[in-house]
This record gives sequence, C-alpha cells and structure tokens, in this order.
Amino acid sequence: MAKINTQPPRGTRDFFPEDLRLRTWLFDIWRETARRFGFEEVDAPILEHAELYMRKAGEEIVDQLYHFELHDRHLALRSEFTPSLARMVMARQGALRWPIRWFGIPQCWRYERMTRGRRREHYQWNMDVWGEPGVAAEAELINAAFSAMDAMGLGAGDVRMRVNSRALLEETLRERFLGDRPEAFEPLCVVIDKLDKIGADAVVDQLADPDGAIRLPKPDALDVVALLQVGGLEEARKSAPAGSAALADLERLFALLEAYDIADRVVFDASVVRGLAYYTGIVFEAFDTGGKLRAVCGGGRYDRLIESLGGKPVSAVGFGFGDAVIAELLDEKGLLPELPRTLDAVIFPFGDAERPRAQALASSLRRSGQSVELVLGQMKPKRALADADRAGAERIYLIGPDELSRGVARVRELRTGEERDEPLPEGPA
Amino acid sequence: MAKINTQPPRGTRDFFPEDLRLRTWLFDIWRETARRFGFEEVDAPILEHAELYMRKAGEEIVDQLYHFELHDRHLALRSEFTPSLARMVMARQGALRWPIRWFGIPQCWRYERMTRGRRREHYQWNMDVWGEPGVAAEAELINAAFSAMDAMGLGAGDVRMRVNSRALLEETLRERFLGDRPEAFEPLCVVIDKLDKIGADAVVDQLADPDGAIRLPKPDALDVVALLQVGGLEEARKSAPAGSAALADLERLFALLEAYDIADRVVFDASVVRGLAYYTGIVFEAFDTGGKLRAVCGGGRYDRLIESLGGKPVSAVGFGFGDAVIAELLDEKGLLPELPRTLDAVIFPFGDAERPRAQALASSLRRSGQSVELVLGQMKPKRALADADRAGAERIYLIGPDELSRGVARVRELRTGEERDEPLPEGPA
Repeated sequence: MAKINTQPPRGTRDFFPEDLRLRTWLFDIWRETARRFGFEEVDAPILEHAELYMRKAGEEIVDQLYHFELHDRHLALRSEFTPSLARMVMARQGALRWPIRWFGIPQCWRYERMTRGRRREHYQWNMDVWGEPGVAAEAELINAAFSAMDAMGLGAGDVRMRVNSRALLEETLRERFLGDRPEAFEPLCVVIDKLDKIGADAVVDQLADPDGAIRLPKPDALDVVALLQVGGLEEARKSAPAGSAALADLERLFALLEAYDIADRVVFDASVVRGLAYYTGIVFEAFDTGGKLRAVCGGGRYDRLIESLGGKPVSAVGFGFGDAVIAELLDEKGLLPELPRTLDAVIFPFGDAERPRAQALASSLRRSGQSVELVLGQMKPKRALADADRAGAERIYLIGPDELSRGVARVRELRTGEERDEPLPEGPA
Repeated sequence: MAKINTQPPRGTRDFFPEDLRLRTWLFDIWRETARRFGFEEVDAPILEHAELYMRKAGEEIVDQLYHFELHDRHLALRSEFTPSLARMVMARQGALRWPIRWFGIPQCWRYERMTRGRRREHYQWNMDVWGEPGVAAEAELINAAFSAMDAMGLGAGDVRMRVNSRALLEETLRERFLGDRPEAFEPLCVVIDKLDKIGADAVVDQLADPDGAIRLPKPDALDVVALLQVGGLEEARKSAPAGSAALADLERLFALLEAYDIADRVVFDASVVRGLAYYTGIVFEAFDTGGKLRAVCGGGRYDRLIESLGGKPVSAVGFGFGDAVIAELLDEKGLLPELPRTLDAVIFPFGDAERPRAQALASSLRRSGQSVELVLGQMKPKRALADADRAGAERIYLIGPDELSRGVARVRELRTGEERDEPLPEGPA
C-alpha cells in the first residue's frame, strides 16, 4: 500500500511527548489558577448541536464552523465553549448554587484560512461567572487572567488589558446615531471589531454600505470611527451621555482592579468590542505590550445569551484564553520552560534468568511511586547504560548473573557515576 | 425564541463539576500508573483523515465511524487511538528512541445504536509499546492494567484477563481448515469475535456462508467453533500444532505474569480474538468475574499495522481501557469515591467599604495556594454563612464595619464553629 499521509489534518497538531509536557504545564497553571479562584471544572461534548452556534450577526465564528449533517442531525465541532455552558446552565437552572463559577479547557475548532500562527483547533481556558450582574465578577475574572500570566513568569508590563463597555458604546451610539434602530447595534459591533484588521476606511465603508445592516450616513460612519479612538477613562467621561449607568460600571470596575493592584495593567479603549454578537456590557482583550501578536485572552459580559436561547435570563461574564498566542508570547520572552522527560530508574536484567527478580524490583519501586522502565529486550550492558542516559533516567539497576547470585542489583547514579549494590526484593514465589 | 434542546447530542455526556471530579480521579489513576511504568503521554487530533480507519475487514468500528466530507477532505472523528499513534510513529520513525512506550487518554467516537450503558463517545486509556517483538511487552502492559485496577480499589478476584494468541489460532486454522486461503483469517476473526454476542449458531452460519469471505464447509465451521471452547494453557498445549512458536510465546508470557504475581488473574481462552482486523499475536480482554459487563479493557499485538499503512514494519502491542465499563464495575462494587467539592475559604465583605480589604485578603490567601471564593454580590451575613456551608468551604472570613475598623476579619471554621479574629493584610495602596 502507498504510504499514508503521516501529517495530522491541515491546521491541527499532534502532541509528541515534549509537546504534551508543555501542554500539561500550561493546563496545570490554568487549573491551579482556577482552583485558587474557587472555580469548578466542567466539560461538554466536542460535537454539539449546530443550532447552538447559528446566530445571525455576520460573525466570522459562524462562517467558520465545522458543521455537517450526520444521520439526519445537524452537528458541529464546537467553535467556542460558551454556548455549551449556556446549555448546561439552562439544563439545571433551578438546581444550581448561584453565582456559578465554572471553568473548562475545551479544544475548539474553526475552519479558517491558514496563515502563520493560525490553526484550525486550539485549546482555550474558559472562566465564566453566571448569575452575578455586578462588575465584581469582571474584576475577579480579569484578576484571574493576570494571575495565570504571573504564574507563567510574565511581568506586570508584558501584557495590557484593554477594556471597553458595549453598554456605554450602545448608549452613545443610540443617542447620537442609531435612534430608533437598536437592532443595528450588534452587526455594528461585528464590523467595528475588524478595525485593526481591515482599517478605518473599510470600516467606514461597511458602516455606510446602503445594502448592509447598519446603513449610517457617511459623516455618521466617520464620527463613529472617530469615537472608537477614545482612550483612557478621562476621555470616556467626557464623551459619555450624562448620567450614564455604563460609565458608572466602568468606574466601579477600575476601582476594584485598583484594590487588586492591577489597575495599571488595564486601559480603557473604546475600540474594543469583541467579534461575538452576544456581548452586552464590559468587554476586554489582553494584548502583549509589544503589539506584535493577536489577543492573548478576551471576554466580556453576555447577559442576554441564555434568554436568546429560550431560557430564563441569567447574567453572565467570562473569558477565553487560548493556548496559541500565549505560547508565542512566552517563546518570544524566553519563558517557555525546559521540560525534559523525568524517569527515576531503568532496570536492566542481563538475560532471562535475571528477569523475574528484575520484575519484582520494578514492582517494588513502582509501588513506592517511582517511574521505572524495565528493559524489555536483550542488549549489551554498555548499550543499556547509554540508552538509560538518553532517556534521562536518574539511575540504572543492572542485574547480571553475579548480582543475581548475590541477591543484589548494581545501581549506577547516572548524574554522578556513583555505584553501589542494593538488595533485590524477593520474587513473588 | 423557542427553548433550545438543553441535552447534549444523543449518546454524549456533559460533565458537570461532580462528573468532572470523577473523570479527573480516573484519569489521574491512569496517568500515575502510566508514569510509574515509564510511559510518556501523547495526543493527536480528534478529527483525523478518514482513510486511517478505512480497512476492509467488515469490522463494526469502520461501519460506526463518524465521518464526513468537509471542504473536499474526508475526515472522521477518531473511533480509536491506535491509527493516529501509528501515523505519529511513522512520521518520526527514524528519530525515536526504541522501544517507544506511549500512552494517551483520547476521547473516541462511534456511531452505534444506543443501548443501556452504550454511548457514542468514551474516553479510553491507551498504553502502547512500539518496537519490541517479545512478549515482555505484553507482560508489562497486562501488569499496568491490573496496577491501575488495584489503584482503583478493585481486588485480585474482581477482574480476570482472558488471553489468547491469534498467531496460535492462525497456525491451527491454517493447518486444519484454511489451507491456501490465509486471507480468510482476518474476516474469520471478525466473525468469531461476535461469539458471545450472537451465539455459536450464528457464528457457524457466517463462517459457512457461501457468499461470505470465509466459506468454510459446515462441519469445519462447527469444528472451528468447538476449537474456541479451549480454555486453560493445558488444553492449548494439547490442541496446538507441534513445535508451535505461538504456543512458546504464550508459555513465556505466563511465566512473566507469574513473576509479576498476576498469573492467577489471567486465563487462556481460545475464543478471545478481538474485533479489530489488525491484531497479529497475543490478544487479551479483561472482564469482571461477575460476568455482567462488557470488557473492562482489551488489546493485543499488531505487528503489521504500520506496514499496512505503507510504513517500515514496526512490531507493536497495546491496550485500550475505557471509562464507561470500569465506572459501572466500580459503582457495582461500591468503589466509586465520594468526591465533594473542596474549597478552603469564602470571604464575605459586608459592603462596598469592606470590599478592597477583602480583595487583598483573597489575593494573599490565593498566593499561599488556598482556594478562595470572594462573595461578589450583596447579602445578609446569615445567608453568606449558610451558602459557604453549602459550598463545602472549610472557613468563612467575615469583614464588616467593626472588623474593618479593627483591621481584622472574623474567621469562622465551618466544621467546628470555632471563631477567631485574623489581621487583614494591607490593601495595595
């Protein structure tokens, strides 16, 4: 037979042992951070009802869905975790302790054009609080994201969180531009989310497109884009409608971030809206301060999602923190850890006569918690030594005819070369 | 909008926190066992090239594949892990340290008819040794499977491993029945694997089917089924061809299992062939001794798989150990652990004035490794106490105006009711 394609499907990854060790290191930091913040881990199927993702806002995420009909069902590989979480919250809405603090590390899939650093799957740490309407929840989440970055060795100046309020934007746009067309707000957010990617001119064109969903007069479209340039809370105060509740929420959030000693890592940025249609309040995105990479993490408040799925309204806020961009950033900063294989012992019986006692020794060491490779085939002691060294083992137990007759193993510490005899445990007989 | 379906797709599971804790408990035992045996963890995409699974032996696993065309590619959700592993081994065939000891805990998907206890996805602990032709590898794997069961609290008498040799079966069948039709052996194994499920008569019918791939004369079909009744190594010795290399391997395997003190948990059983076409040598399946459940784990030697995928031949042996049957067995034996949520502390600031110091306390406790829920909303102290109790917290820190003025938190140990004051850390200012 012709050789199969040995590469994984385009845009996906194999995890060889060294890749898996790095993934585990990252996941452990996410899990430990979540645990310290009192979040509980959950999971849902990677294959979901496609309808969960089928919104009508022109989002990229919907266009990029891996979906298909199978046995008369319309299914999709999850492109994001939040809809599954919403489904789970709805399934037990009457029986949960509120607010809910849940996290997960789902693999998510998007069919996108392949460009450097873009793949079609990634793992994403999701942290969500359900049932808490106040911005104390946002403060908790933003703090957790920074705590995880701290645990990875990133410094206070390496990543900035840009925060905006969709509610504030909506108040402002309604008052000044949308008037009686509130339904234009969600598609408008989807368009202005592309500002960094497609540039101001293209955004203006889309906002003013007479065949589009938004259809602003050109001067208004220009004003909207100008409004997005507002940076810093001072500026926001000036441009906000009088008595704005959304501005008060923002002010409160910054005070809470101050108490967590992370306010200097967070900036108000009116251009942050997030590409997902369902956000309703505070939105945030973290970027490397070098400005080279895509968002490290991002999230926001989505108080109307469950309602839009037919459930009883539940306020909610959460973020996703992918494994791809953070790995690029850590790599660039020299912070990706060296994670060599660890192995306590290799046991080498010279031949069949020595094997039963070698097995008994392996069992004994394993019972004590050590990781032990028992050499399975025949080889020369010299090769076994070199091979144990290559495996990164701490020590090798050599059991030849002489050792067997004396009831010992010859132990060699591979880092120091020190040697000694150790008594062999009796076999099971 | 009408309420969406809040259940996961049919045959799949959500993992609420209590389900996830149990899954983590199981995965931790698998991972720790694998670590002690010197195996390294790997992973591969859940979405694979469909061609990896497209064999022509009438296996159920091929019929039950979740596969689909997407953007001109034929893709499938993995139904088993071994083909992905084979692909990975082939991709680095020249650069690996042999033998390879790899494990993984992939989620695998099969579209099957739903019956009690059958689902369409499960997690499966896979342990594989690549590049070792001798049965020392089989002994290592069977011992690892039992070690994991021991760690779960199962007793030596709870599970029996049934072992057979496909090589021995092939030698015997060729000598007595297949003659010059060796190609009939693989489909024959697929049929006799169904013996327990469809019964001897149906197996005889399929073996003798004149339109099938096997086409034995009816008397031969009856003899083959009779041959499968052979149990115990003594009987095997009698029915094996003279000078059988396969029998010698079996004898050697049992001697190695003896040295691991697990020979009494393993029995020779000629009817075990495994449903997958690619097995070539020793095959094994573990069952609860109560005989109520499907196989707890199963595996075997598949020395020709990589060759069949177009690679350079590599001997290999491995097993899969699913999460479904073992959970049923542990449940039946009362061995599923109680895994309540653990939470070190709840911190309750009475109001906004107390919140900054409460946040500083939360940060301080979290930095010391504690899991801490900070109460996010407003409530009465009595409700906060009851709620902390319901969360399973060890203690609650109450910070009201009086505590704030004294610079302390009132700490209540929720198991004993003991109370004390503890100084609050300074805020960040």
